[in-house]
Amino acid sequence: MAILCKPAIAVPEYVITNDETLELARRLHADHPQLELALSLIEHTGVQKRHLIQPIEKVLQHPGFDARSATYEAQTKSRVPAVVRQALVEAELDATQIDMIIYVSCTGFMMPPPTAWLINTMGFRPETRQMPIAQLGCAAGGAAINRAHDFCRAYPECNVLIVACEFCSLCYQPTDLSVGSLLSDGLFGDGIAAAVVRGTGGTGIRLERNGSYIIPNTEDWISYAVRSTGFHFQLDKRVPGTMEPLAPALSAVAEQHQWNASKLDFYIIHAGGPRILDDLSRFLDVPPEAFRFSRATLTEYGNIASAVVLDACARMFDEASALDGQRGLMAGFGPGITAEIALGTWTSDPAASE
Amino acid sequence: MAILCKPAIAVPEYVITNDETLELARRLHADHPQLELALSLIEHTGVQKRHLIQPIEKVLQHPGFDARSATYEAQTKSRVPAVVRQALVEAELDATQIDMIIYVSCTGFMMPPPTAWLINTMGFRPETRQMPIAQLGCAAGGAAINRAHDFCRAYPECNVLIVACEFCSLCYQPTDLSVGSLLSDGLFGDGIAAAVVRGTGGTGIRLERNGSYIIPNTEDWISYAVRSTGFHFQLDKRVPGTMEPLAPALSAVAEQHQWNASKLDFYIIHAGGPRILDDLSRFLDVPPEAFRFSRATLTEYGNIASAVVLDACARMFDEASALDGQRGLMAGFGPGITAEIALGTWTSDPAASE
Repeated sequence: MAILCKPAIAVPEYVITNDETLELARRLHADHPQLELALSLIEHTGVQKRHLIQPIEKVLQHPGFDARSATYEAQTKSRVPAVVRQALVEAELDATQIDMIIYVSCTGFMMPPPTAWLINTMGFRPETRQMPIAQLGCAAGGAAINRAHDFCRAYPECNVLIVACEFCSLCYQPTDLSVGSLLSDGLFGDGIAAAVVRGTGGTGIRLERNGSYIIPNTEDWISYAVRSTGFHFQLDKRVPGTMEPLAPALSAVAEQHQWNASKLDFYIIHAGGPRILDDLSRFLDVPPEAFRFSRATLTEYGNIASAVVLDACARMFDEASALDGQRGLMAGFGPGITAEIALGTWTSDPAASE
Repeated sequence: MAILCKPAIAVPEYVITNDETLELARRLHADHPQLELALSLIEHTGVQKRHLIQPIEKVLQHPGFDARSATYEAQTKSRVPAVVRQALVEAELDATQIDMIIYVSCTGFMMPPPTAWLINTMGFRPETRQMPIAQLGCAAGGAAINRAHDFCRAYPECNVLIVACEFCSLCYQPTDLSVGSLLSDGLFGDGIAAAVVRGTGGTGIRLERNGSYIIPNTEDWISYAVRSTGFHFQLDKRVPGTMEPLAPALSAVAEQHQWNASKLDFYIIHAGGPRILDDLSRFLDVPPEAFRFSRATLTEYGNIASAVVLDACARMFDEASALDGQRGLMAGFGPGITAEIALGTWTSDPAASE
């Protein structure tokens, strides 16, 4: 019985409010023909503030991809270990009890992956399996939970550490001026999440079933152009409308489990933007309040990519209102357009429920 | 019982012989202070020829990372589908029967990953899980087999498609002039491999156990510098000596299974270079002949990164000498320094052996 334990979260110390973002957009793009549209979109993201690994003046400078790659590595090494340590504490395990590390991050690239460095410096066993995933974008948080679930299903005595590390500000591209780019510049934030999926024991969400779904022929709706200046995020204006085809996919996974996706006790949804949450609550026919954890993530941190679902999940743990046996749905969305869907049950005593 | 079916392999049509490589190195690096050392290393790789996706004159030009990324995507889309189709034929499955695609490639980067395009264009179900891995380098072929094994262990009714697509020539960096770089320029080749791991049925290697091992504190021995010119492969001269610490790790996984790594019937080993194979046969105390499949890959294609283990495996199928119940070991090696290790048994009738 795989249990997703309480995620640990860290956001960096530099803060930009939505008002500051709007002011910045007005100043940087005064002559942009669609400035008003971009400002209106940013105003309605629901984001109040975002956290950044560097002061905004530094974020706005593009020092070249070489320097950004070096910053990505240095920031990873300085910020990730504390979050990993906290996730282990939450799971009541130490590093030697982890059998696999799933590391998801789409905002930088390292080979060997950061898992190698973590194993070497944090006391993980040399036999720890490494699963680094860089290409699933915001959906990777859900994918990490699901692949951890699969692994614990294969090896019930094993434990998996998940890390989602996203420095979205390192993908800021000053020359990208589409409305989608300006909106993204005002939507994404930096954040790190880590959580353990325990094969046995632990308190949290007992993972029971997972599924994936790709909306046919939408590969170019969310994508990177990989260029000499790094990763250029490309956002199509059709993306906010994707909940109409994805809601039935979420419902289908629930139905396979004899659950009704409209009648669950909790929802942990990727907060890609405000319309994602509004539409999904409408198409799934659940009250907007059901998505309060995701909304809080969006409001306080912006879209922190693959870390969103883990942050929203941590907020549910903090609310501490879930009762044993209550059922929920988790979903990450990202490029593809891909959904990674999980079903789970709140469990404070896994031995009792097996 | 997860069965690794016969891999399909394709190498591109442009060929460079080792003599041509040596001549080229002499011409391009006439003034290099360590030219003789580099030539001697290239001469002793055991590579007779390599295959390239473009004529060598084009390989040698660096058109910029933007153009290379575009070439990577175009070449992927033009060359991968035929290999995938053949892998499905070998497994006697069609695309709708695949539940997960594990796609490994470290020589280019796409988001969404190529799995999204494959699903959309080749008739895979929209529910197909995607596991793209870019950061495990040459070890990723072994990792793909092992993660497919884990998935089939969790869901015995499922089937996994593995794709390893490596266009190493797209990482040629004309400004990298260390001896390690010159050697790499003469060692790596392009190639594509695909194989299905069936959860039930099929003929091939029944996967029984897998394991990983990272040699402590060797992260910088094989690595990429991620720069405006793309991925720069960095090879430390200590890498050829890594079989001494890795051989015991391979033996340990065999021992966990009550097998003796020195006394197995077949070996499918990553052909990173000639000394890797020589040393490993010495440290494992197996005759050099046991590594004939890997040697043939190295001789005919060079080091085709994550595709090596699948190509060597296909050669074993072609030799058709394995008998039911014979035991073997597979191992991929790559940055970390990481080994991905698998144990399996040749099985032509899985129903009989269950």
